[in-house]
Amino acid sequence: MNAIRPMAGGEVGRSVPRLESREKVTGRAEYVHNLVVPGLLHAKVFRSTIAHGRIRSIDIAAAESLKGVHAVFTGEMIRKLVAEPYYGPAFHDQPVLALDKVRHVGEPVAVVLASDPYIAAEAVQLITADYEELPAVFDEVEAMTSKAIVHDVLRPAGTFPDLKHLVGRRDTNIALDYQLRRGDVDAAFAAADHVYEHEFHTQQVMHTPLEPMVSLAEPGHECLTIHTASQSPSFVRIEIARLLGWAENQVRVKVPYLGGGFGAKLYIKLEALVACLALMTRRPVKLSLTMEEQFYTITKHASTFRIKSAVSRDGRVTGRRCEVFWNGGAYADIGPRVTQKSGFTAPGPYDIENVSIDSYALYTNRPPAGALRGFGIPQLVWAYESHTDLIARDLGIDPVEFRRRNILREGREQATGTAMRDAGIEAVLDKVAERMLWIEPFDRGTGTIRRGRGVAIGFKASIAPTTSVAIVNVSADGSSVLYMSTVDMGQGSDTAMAQIVAETLGLRTEHIKVVHPDTDVTPYDMATLGSRSTFHMGNAVKLAAEHARDQLKELAASLGLPEGNNYEPKELFKKKYGMQAGNVIGVGSYIPPYSSPEPGTGLSANVTPFWMIGGTGVEVEVDTETGHVRVTKLVNAADLGAPLNPAVVETQLSGGALMQLGFTMFENMDLDAGQVTNASLADYKIPGIHDMPSIIDNQIVEARQTTGPFGAKGVGESATFGVSPAIANAIHDAVGVRLTSLPLTPEAVLRAIRAAAKNPLEG
Amino acid sequence: MNAIRPMAGGEVGRSVPRLESREKVTGRAEYVHNLVVPGLLHAKVFRSTIAHGRIRSIDIAAAESLKGVHAVFTGEMIRKLVAEPYYGPAFHDQPVLALDKVRHVGEPVAVVLASDPYIAAEAVQLITADYEELPAVFDEVEAMTSKAIVHDVLRPAGTFPDLKHLVGRRDTNIALDYQLRRGDVDAAFAAADHVYEHEFHTQQVMHTPLEPMVSLAEPGHECLTIHTASQSPSFVRIEIARLLGWAENQVRVKVPYLGGGFGAKLYIKLEALVACLALMTRRPVKLSLTMEEQFYTITKHASTFRIKSAVSRDGRVTGRRCEVFWNGGAYADIGPRVTQKSGFTAPGPYDIENVSIDSYALYTNRPPAGALRGFGIPQLVWAYESHTDLIARDLGIDPVEFRRRNILREGREQATGTAMRDAGIEAVLDKVAERMLWIEPFDRGTGTIRRGRGVAIGFKASIAPTTSVAIVNVSADGSSVLYMSTVDMGQGSDTAMAQIVAETLGLRTEHIKVVHPDTDVTPYDMATLGSRSTFHMGNAVKLAAEHARDQLKELAASLGLPEGNNYEPKELFKKKYGMQAGNVIGVGSYIPPYSSPEPGTGLSANVTPFWMIGGTGVEVEVDTETGHVRVTKLVNAADLGAPLNPAVVETQLSGGALMQLGFTMFENMDLDAGQVTNASLADYKIPGIHDMPSIIDNQIVEARQTTGPFGAKGVGESATFGVSPAIANAIHDAVGVRLTSLPLTPEAVLRAIRAAAKNPLEG
Repeated sequence: MNAIRPMAGGEVGRSVPRLESREKVTGRAEYVHNLVVPGLLHAKVFRSTIAHGRIRSIDIAAAESLKGVHAVFTGEMIRKLVAEPYYGPAFHDQPVLALDKVRHVGEPVAVVLASDPYIAAEAVQLITADYEELPAVFDEVEAMTSKAIVHDVLRPAGTFPDLKHLVGRRDTNIALDYQLRRGDVDAAFAAADHVYEHEFHTQQVMHTPLEPMVSLAEPGHECLTIHTASQSPSFVRIEIARLLGWAENQVRVKVPYLGGGFGAKLYIKLEALVACLALMTRRPVKLSLTMEEQFYTITKHASTFRIKSAVSRDGRVTGRRCEVFWNGGAYADIGPRVTQKSGFTAPGPYDIENVSIDSYALYTNRPPAGALRGFGIPQLVWAYESHTDLIARDLGIDPVEFRRRNILREGREQATGTAMRDAGIEAVLDKVAERMLWIEPFDRGTGTIRRGRGVAIGFKASIAPTTSVAIVNVSADGSSVLYMSTVDMGQGSDTAMAQIVAETLGLRTEHIKVVHPDTDVTPYDMATLGSRSTFHMGNAVKLAAEHARDQLKELAASLGLPEGNNYEPKELFKKKYGMQAGNVIGVGSYIPPYSSPEPGTGLSANVTPFWMIGGTGVEVEVDTETGHVRVTKLVNAADLGAPLNPAVVETQLSGGALMQLGFTMFENMDLDAGQVTNASLADYKIPGIHDMPSIIDNQIVEARQTTGPFGAKGVGESATFGVSPAIANAIHDAVGVRLTSLPLTPEAVLRAIRAAAKNPLEG
Repeated sequence: MNAIRPMAGGEVGRSVPRLESREKVTGRAEYVHNLVVPGLLHAKVFRSTIAHGRIRSIDIAAAESLKGVHAVFTGEMIRKLVAEPYYGPAFHDQPVLALDKVRHVGEPVAVVLASDPYIAAEAVQLITADYEELPAVFDEVEAMTSKAIVHDVLRPAGTFPDLKHLVGRRDTNIALDYQLRRGDVDAAFAAADHVYEHEFHTQQVMHTPLEPMVSLAEPGHECLTIHTASQSPSFVRIEIARLLGWAENQVRVKVPYLGGGFGAKLYIKLEALVACLALMTRRPVKLSLTMEEQFYTITKHASTFRIKSAVSRDGRVTGRRCEVFWNGGAYADIGPRVTQKSGFTAPGPYDIENVSIDSYALYTNRPPAGALRGFGIPQLVWAYESHTDLIARDLGIDPVEFRRRNILREGREQATGTAMRDAGIEAVLDKVAERMLWIEPFDRGTGTIRRGRGVAIGFKASIAPTTSVAIVNVSADGSSVLYMSTVDMGQGSDTAMAQIVAETLGLRTEHIKVVHPDTDVTPYDMATLGSRSTFHMGNAVKLAAEHARDQLKELAASLGLPEGNNYEPKELFKKKYGMQAGNVIGVGSYIPPYSSPEPGTGLSANVTPFWMIGGTGVEVEVDTETGHVRVTKLVNAADLGAPLNPAVVETQLSGGALMQLGFTMFENMDLDAGQVTNASLADYKIPGIHDMPSIIDNQIVEARQTTGPFGAKGVGESATFGVSPAIANAIHDAVGVRLTSLPLTPEAVLRAIRAAAKNPLEG
């Protein structure tokens, strides 16, 4: 390692190799799966086999008497520890183990504990449950009016003021009815030259982190340590403390590296269960899910989007009505936030005077849905950019040109009324068009292989307002430690944040050590989600590093050293303390400005601290005999401000786009009466090497988030936005058929081609 | 647990039960001995059987070929990792494993690693070493002039400027020659009415922590984690980083609870060895010492003190010459600091115009000596308070009265020239006299059981200047976490520091959680030693808590709340963040004012941040037939400022006094050519329940350390000061004989009684 010596800067914006690379490739990086503690009990879960029903009885006697079984618990037994054992970020609706009712196939009903996980698994097979089956509802639109009611009473968590009106509601599956009204949509439709209306669907899919969910709880005296593969250590701490009626500092949550998260590992997943089990048995308890169990734990919202636009003959969209139905499954998780926070961008990145949005979070009897890379945005962009393409085609306007005419430009107000700032929507569109050689001649294929191309753009607000706090501790030799609760789940946050500290203190990134989330020592962070870390935690880290730097300057001044020089911390500390001793500790706390939406209209002057912009261009080859679609070229462009680490950012763009490629082309949870019939990676296909486009072209547009740390903002989701509609648009371009439901399987494409041959599409 | 609600204060000064009591009595408290990590190798040490010699060869072949042995290392092999593998706080004199020479019996020469510690122990038996024996020196006074030279060249660490003149010195065993000169001692002796001169000796003893030393190192990529039972995590981090040529933040040092320290677990003990072994094998390595091995690792200085006083006929001491010889053993450890920092108090807590002190740190071929509860003070008080008693007796003045005539009063200058502030020497003496019923008639016994009583007082400076840093993190519900590197080794520091935070923030102590030392997260602290924590860390913690409190006040003001009210943090955070979120982080850094002693005279206007004062009174019964002495009453009085936690303070007083009782009455390392012949708890007696005085009377004198946190200062050592001379003085009082060497065994007492019967003592 090089000497710890002040540098001239240049750490930010440089593709610094990831700090953890070596640890990961040598197998030394810490994961919860590898953690073993003395006296550990392994938990295995007995799950519901039906989608909706009242629990008549659970027979655990045979499981309890199996040799090697330590204990078996049901929901009623959890109640002895916690009278109201319900958790959730938006609603306190999810029981630690099922109570009274089961609401989806795969819901945890009982749990077996044994020192040997195989014995625990064997004992689970000996448990039986008797249910009184109830009518179930699976479709989000049906759920609006169904007599099958998933929750007898609604219990909003009290965290979000806009859920207050739902407290105690009965006979409804609507977990949030979000509205936005801007201008006069009816008048716009009445005055329109053209009106277009379409309906689009997305399917239920899974996050599929390569590291399945795992949590381990160790009981102490009036305290508890939870080691968990979580994206939200601070939330876990606060929610488990609430559940137990404890103070925050009685719960310690530690998170090492994650093998992917994508939103699956947010809020409470296994933590409440292992916490209760550890407290009841006074033993450490570990629960690791299989890949199959993850399908029943958290998923991405299936959705229905009805979109209707008023368009003038010169190609300006003058009004738009959006109705979005989010299939939240049996427990709300963060679905109501998806419904609202993403809901307000449903009209797309376009400058539309008159807008009406209704966005509904719905309970159904499917496995729960929550946040998944994009937080609802890919579902919305799928609809509005397919819709946009259909309008352009119908009007005979080039789709890029049509978008350009309607695009939201800097300073203009988005649907909520928030003015666009540092939002390079046009720059992204232009970059996609440029890299797609949009105005060049295009080879459209021959015979059974037809070629087409498509583009799409999308945007996303950041979740707001949220808080991040960071501590930077400068040692007496200048080497520094960063304490933060941002979780490095593969996105490279450790490195990016260390770069911010290094740049600010004039050190090398390799001299910054990052302490992983541990709620006893790393301060509060809302969570690692929604591409918020670079901006929020980045700002907090920068403030902390500046606070430390200012103290070092004051130290130099107090020692009578001339101003302006860049002193080695080592010299200063030695002068101050007479030896290598002491620390300088900088603290940074960041919460962006925010204004709440007005009740009724949903309007707000400041709804997000920054905008994420992503655009996609694709070229496809469609085999008209088989329906097989091959994406041959994929352009990902994004406005992510000024990149902190270009190499890491590029992997984020590729990763996001390829994940969405899987959701577009083949990933789909096949449900049969609520049962996932393909709940394994053998049957549920995720993208493999043969699915990669031959050309992947990642483009960072020149930009700067003026309020971001060193001009940066988030990027983890931006490349997911446009992938699905760009591909559907390209298929339309290639073979003249429009698909409105995901995924775009060969069967669906072939069926559409055959149907079109009989009934040619209009336009 | 009670609600987290502002309190009216009253947490400081209250006997709050220790935070860790429940964990300890239920066996859940963390100790390094209980730590197991995957792939662990156990280390066992092969040790020198001779006191001084050159290593000709070490034969490890048989050990290496024993089945189950992972590896065997010698000092030369360590050199492949570290070219200069020497460590130490004052001198870089101690090799990780012996190189070229061995300097004491029991010195580590080679080490065996195996997954099974019993195989490692068996393999150690198969190692042989061949030495060229060299003349050895064991006595500290002989070491001044001996031709047997322990270290060929002196290598001061460079940390202490007063050791600079020793760099590169050869042909000497003097590791520090400390001098202080005040007034004109020769003139005082010339003018004196009486001159008294005596020589006193103390023996080598051991700390005997009930938890033997243990360290475990885990290697990472360019980093290392050391779990160690250490009193000085920050020092271990910095010293291991220096040894390896690394940055501080590449070394992480974690310390859970300690089962006692008493100075044994300071600086580097096993850490350098396990660190090197872990890096060379790329495996975690643990080394736990047996009780026997501890006798060869670190001990308390044996000493010789020549003291000479000029006294006027009215009982005023006008001049004093002190010559102290400290037997440091084979490696300096912190001995030179003992020599200087305690050395300057050698004349005792008396107001003496003319003083000359020479204090010598000496290398010998004994096991090394370092800090042990009192840091040299008990050795000094033993001499000067025996001497004081002899003078009073000779002059026919009551010993309490004689002390009172000479005592250092508030504002007067101590030998160094530093004025006494907040030093209740007279109050302590008065309290001892009062509780001893000194002016009441006293039963002197009959027949073979003779009774006597004695008093002694002592004082100590705190080590200076040293730094402490603390962080207080207030959670959104008000519960708080304190990060500090003070080690709770049984003294109750976790509780006392939590009380300071609670008092400052208006919380209950039970709502404060203490994060144990972990150099990646708990900031720098010089070490847990010399009774410095309450004052230094206490001030840092108070500053940190005040910093947090001020930020909470600012937060309330920024939210437009009226001033003056005591808001619940929970309310403030909810108002600020709209939810239970965020943290307020307070930082405190404390270093007291200090002025370095002038070269030559050793004078300084500000040599210590505070003074510790302890006094002891004892009543004894001496069996004149057997020499057996029974201490029937023990009064411990101390000025410790205003106590933070009176109950904890009282246990410190009892504990300190009883530990010194063992060193006074029977503890003694019996050496035969440098070999400890009683290196086990079967043969080396520590105080047991039958040795307890019938009456133990702990007295906290009314006082206040104006510069301390809530008026407090350190107390861990104060009750050790006077025990030895008070007992010797009481024996003299009972049977008219004077013992000048410790321990005061029945054999020694009986021998003195018999000698006195032949040659009656003068006076």
